[in-house]
Amino acid sequence: MRSIVDNAELALLLEVAGTPKPGNVDREREYDDLRFEHFLAGAVGARAGLELAADPDGPPIGEAFERAVEGMSDQRGGNTQFGALLLLVPLVRAAARDDLSPSGAREVAESTTVTDAAGFYRAFEHVDVSVDDPPADLDDLDVRRGSDAVPALHARGLALDAVMERSADRDGVAREWVEGFPRSFHAAERLGDLEGPVPDRAAQVFLELLSDEPDTFVAINHDETTAERVSARARAVLEGDGDADALAEDLIDREINPGTTADIVAAGLFVALERGLDV
Amino acid sequence: MRSIVDNAELALLLEVAGTPKPGNVDREREYDDLRFEHFLAGAVGARAGLELAADPDGPPIGEAFERAVEGMSDQRGGNTQFGALLLLVPLVRAAARDDLSPSGAREVAESTTVTDAAGFYRAFEHVDVSVDDPPADLDDLDVRRGSDAVPALHARGLALDAVMERSADRDGVAREWVEGFPRSFHAAERLGDLEGPVPDRAAQVFLELLSDEPDTFVAINHDETTAERVSARARAVLEGDGDADALAEDLIDREINPGTTADIVAAGLFVALERGLDV
Repeated sequence: MRSIVDNAELALLLEVAGTPKPGNVDREREYDDLRFEHFLAGAVGARAGLELAADPDGPPIGEAFERAVEGMSDQRGGNTQFGALLLLVPLVRAAARDDLSPSGAREVAESTTVTDAAGFYRAFEHVDVSVDDPPADLDDLDVRRGSDAVPALHARGLALDAVMERSADRDGVAREWVEGFPRSFHAAERLGDLEGPVPDRAAQVFLELLSDEPDTFVAINHDETTAERVSARARAVLEGDGDADALAEDLIDREINPGTTADIVAAGLFVALERGLDV
Repeated sequence: MRSIVDNAELALLLEVAGTPKPGNVDREREYDDLRFEHFLAGAVGARAGLELAADPDGPPIGEAFERAVEGMSDQRGGNTQFGALLLLVPLVRAAARDDLSPSGAREVAESTTVTDAAGFYRAFEHVDVSVDDPPADLDDLDVRRGSDAVPALHARGLALDAVMERSADRDGVAREWVEGFPRSFHAAERLGDLEGPVPDRAAQVFLELLSDEPDTFVAINHDETTAERVSARARAVLEGDGDADALAEDLIDREINPGTTADIVAAGLFVALERGLDV
């Protein structure tokens, strides 16, 4: 019997094993400086933090997240699974409390405090994460400030859930937090309904999610139009009007990486594994 | 900082990520019923047993091994990493005792008792393992008897190390135990000396080991001549007189699987990671 943490780790591994996942590193495609094995090491390194999240009476999930990111970053590729861990940590805590459901996950999110927000900010010190510039009046809350922003968090009394709420309009991971992880749970259902090897299902669900909504990581690193075009091309592939492998090659060549969509696939894999998905 | 167990698990993952490793499942080649993701789940599932091995004052390593195999087998592919775990468990215990060296590993092996042997036999109940028929006078010690053989182990007072000694002439994993893991430590040195991404180094070391000595798993499942021919072909590839990918395709087609050599690569990866190999 795999434990909750085992399933969280396996979800990270199965996500990167799914191929083709156009634009993302997978077992057949990688960048020179961001390689398949960096994701393997990232998943293993995140373990100690996931263990903290899996203790129902454990430390604040912001601390578990920071620990997971710190361990994840102990490889040469840099940021491999920051967003996936930001989804997994509250889901793991909800599972540990025997309520891995949208409402159970929202309860975990709602019970966060400024301490969790501080852990989240400290996590940015371990790894470079692509983020948007904040509005000028929120400059003191720029996540890239890391722990330097903690006094401002305290001054404003911002819990981690409130931090997520402020990013929900431009970041798909934050939106999952705020809305009760709807796309993660939807992905879990699709993963359970599809047939065939789990990595193939993951690749299919990735395409479906990408076609449904523009990837916010692409929007941040490129622009909205690019993100919308990528989603349109994913839709075309699903409709039989394009080839997934060709799309994968093209996006990798142009370094267009729909990372948020991959994060949600990882979260969906975790929920599906907890619900009994066989590998 | 990855823990000893983290490194053991990562070694299993990096081993299967290395490609091409002619005849073995890797990220680009798999069998319909033995797939890449089965190895991912096997590595994650083995974790609880590896934790027992990593406790210097933990339970007998035979028990840790049984637990690791039980967890490993919680996926649909069957036997993914039995031999690799049989190498890793004593190496992990030696590392936990701060003596990850041939002599430190031999000390662990020499300190095994009948209790360890019983754990080893019970491990065969969790998964089908290809083994040779034992000589007629040793029929009561056939590993396929699982725990039914435990009374015979006690009657003969056989420690796990003595069980390994009896198989050392025909099984390359048992030979590692008896001789102080020479090929595992040699593989670790090569992995450290080579350049480039770790999975590529693992694939290279696999070929080198295979060219050095016929794979005993091939000899058991096919015959000695086949094992020798496979090694000759690996040698040819290393000498530039053959293509590793073509050899990989051919061996997979013929279901010739040099699994013992892969096990030793996994053990070598663990030692190399413990010695600071960066991923």
